[in-house]
Amino acid sequence: MGRDQEREARMGLACVVEPGDPRVLPLLAEFGAQEVWGSVVARPSGVWGRRAEGLDVAGVRRRGVEAGVRFVIPGDDEWPEGLGVLDGCEPVQDSVGAPVGLWLRGEGHLATVVASSVAVVGARASSAYGEQVAADVAAGVGERGFAVVSGGAYGIDAAAHRGVLAAEGVSVAVVAGGLDGAYPRAHEGLFAQIARTGVVVSEVPPGEHPTRRRFLTRNRLIAALTLGTVVVEAAARSGARNTASWAAACGRVVMAVPGSVHSATSVTPHRLIRDQEAVLVTGPDDVVEMVGPVGGAREESVGGHERLLDLLTDVQRAVREELPVRGGRDAGEIAVRVGLPLPVCLGALEELALAGHAEPTADGRWRLGATSNRPIKGATGGS
Amino acid sequence: MGRDQEREARMGLACVVEPGDPRVLPLLAEFGAQEVWGSVVARPSGVWGRRAEGLDVAGVRRRGVEAGVRFVIPGDDEWPEGLGVLDGCEPVQDSVGAPVGLWLRGEGHLATVVASSVAVVGARASSAYGEQVAADVAAGVGERGFAVVSGGAYGIDAAAHRGVLAAEGVSVAVVAGGLDGAYPRAHEGLFAQIARTGVVVSEVPPGEHPTRRRFLTRNRLIAALTLGTVVVEAAARSGARNTASWAAACGRVVMAVPGSVHSATSVTPHRLIRDQEAVLVTGPDDVVEMVGPVGGAREESVGGHERLLDLLTDVQRAVREELPVRGGRDAGEIAVRVGLPLPVCLGALEELALAGHAEPTADGRWRLGATSNRPIKGATGGS
Repeated sequence: MGRDQEREARMGLACVVEPGDPRVLPLLAEFGAQEVWGSVVARPSGVWGRRAEGLDVAGVRRRGVEAGVRFVIPGDDEWPEGLGVLDGCEPVQDSVGAPVGLWLRGEGHLATVVASSVAVVGARASSAYGEQVAADVAAGVGERGFAVVSGGAYGIDAAAHRGVLAAEGVSVAVVAGGLDGAYPRAHEGLFAQIARTGVVVSEVPPGEHPTRRRFLTRNRLIAALTLGTVVVEAAARSGARNTASWAAACGRVVMAVPGSVHSATSVTPHRLIRDQEAVLVTGPDDVVEMVGPVGGAREESVGGHERLLDLLTDVQRAVREELPVRGGRDAGEIAVRVGLPLPVCLGALEELALAGHAEPTADGRWRLGATSNRPIKGATGGS
Repeated sequence: MGRDQEREARMGLACVVEPGDPRVLPLLAEFGAQEVWGSVVARPSGVWGRRAEGLDVAGVRRRGVEAGVRFVIPGDDEWPEGLGVLDGCEPVQDSVGAPVGLWLRGEGHLATVVASSVAVVGARASSAYGEQVAADVAAGVGERGFAVVSGGAYGIDAAAHRGVLAAEGVSVAVVAGGLDGAYPRAHEGLFAQIARTGVVVSEVPPGEHPTRRRFLTRNRLIAALTLGTVVVEAAARSGARNTASWAAACGRVVMAVPGSVHSATSVTPHRLIRDQEAVLVTGPDDVVEMVGPVGGAREESVGGHERLLDLLTDVQRAVREELPVRGGRDAGEIAVRVGLPLPVCLGALEELALAGHAEPTADGRWRLGATSNRPIKGATGGS
């Protein structure tokens, strides 16, 4: 049906379009994935069309199936709502937009796992101090019920994953290459361990290799999937700084761990803190204080001001998510989007209206209340 | 004459009143030192009166002379204008107000030395890391022409003094006991070394011992004398935090040095940075960037907003300092005060007038321009 066609189209697009390509976002918004994919296929002379012509979708599928990989798209139950923020935020280094689709591997339910999650990131070339702190922070937030999200690299990434896994917490690795392989190869075992309770995530299809650009655009997923990003260690020029920029662009909390002023790997955390682009954190307690309790939702704010909306129930929060800032949306449509019976949705709308989070429009539809802030991404669900 | 009586009265008051006693400030403001001292002497039943009765002023004087100590009061050339901020700021831990007078020892001219100075403070129980950073910061700002101001304790204080002295910079120790002794005794040599080019300062008379309260009230002098305070290392409960509070109350720049999250002595710096009570600094370059160039004047501001006036030349700045906000002052008098030939002074006045910093009065004198800010305290002199 339409859903299958949508999935087909998005998988095709995800195979021919580089992650974060700024040209895709307006096309998808205007025409939808199926029409865009149809146009790509119909124009074999274009860059995407040429790639589409050479594309072996069956091969991609087969490699995915063999590697135990599933492909999820917006609207799927497992699709993390938090990624939606990427469609509305400022581009970072020419990349922008939510992924067209995601390949996933692992037993974790991605949307549920990342609903209460923290990114712990940093340099490959880390110090023993940095790895220790990364493991401690990851273990500590894991013990407090948060999943940890990071990349798949040596150094801070690996220390964070190992820390949360040792604490029997759940981990998510967002990698820059296809999930049929492991990069670095030495982390094959680590990724397998992560997949046992968590998820390994990629936006490029099986068979694809990581590139520098893919590492950088991958960072926007780490930032958007989580409530906040902790930069543990990073030298002056480092991908972790890029992740911090994405977290800020997404309105997420940016945190950084201090260290010795003599350590080159603390240069970026210190600079982020000094320039008030990040809040100083010294351990998991500080991190949890910044991102709020598990299941609690955190107000997005470009200005850094954060207000917790944890007085709302999960249902109220989910409904509030679907309220447009301008115009209005039918209660029926909201109910379908949230996946709730209409009466439940209407009840939640009334409660939200009382709290100022929702208001009816003149034509009987609903929008976000003027005294509420813009919708929270990635704060529904949760444990 | 009146000046001698004023000095006499202030010395008497400084001998019987505890530093920072909040009851003194309004009395001095209302009646002046001579009248307050007269009342103290006339009421031997009062607490201060009883102390005054038992006071051996001649003995205090003699001990001071023997120790090579001088006593300065507001209006003296060597009196640092920056202390005036203490009369207008919020009390910290029940202390408030500029000192009644100061005992000084050393070859440095206090007002000139502290005009471009930075406080480097921290815990007695410091780590090797903290002492290294304190020495590096002190040496670095010393090389850039700033004096270093600190206490006289073991640990960070001593490391800061030794650092700036090693760099052939000028140091100021503000101590909590009388200048005829040294506390700790082991720092007698260090204080003598400081006095060779800088100043050792106390607000309690020779013969007096430091007390816990005196250490805390002493901190307000360190904060007020300087353009900014750097907290290098301090445990959770530490006097350095008190100095940081004073610096904030005085509208000075508060800075803190990060360190290992595992170090108990970095707890206070990290907390100050996290709570945005201090700016993170990693070395002398960061410090100088925060307090501005030597001779550059920093606008005082309770709100923390700082504007550099470093477009002005040293001469212009010195002349601007002498311009009254109300009324007016003769160019001739300004020339005498600044110690410049009249034509040079007149030239500077014209230049300042063009920049809006000076304006002629109806009767041919000069005052501060309406678009300039109020006179900068403690920013004249320097190198």
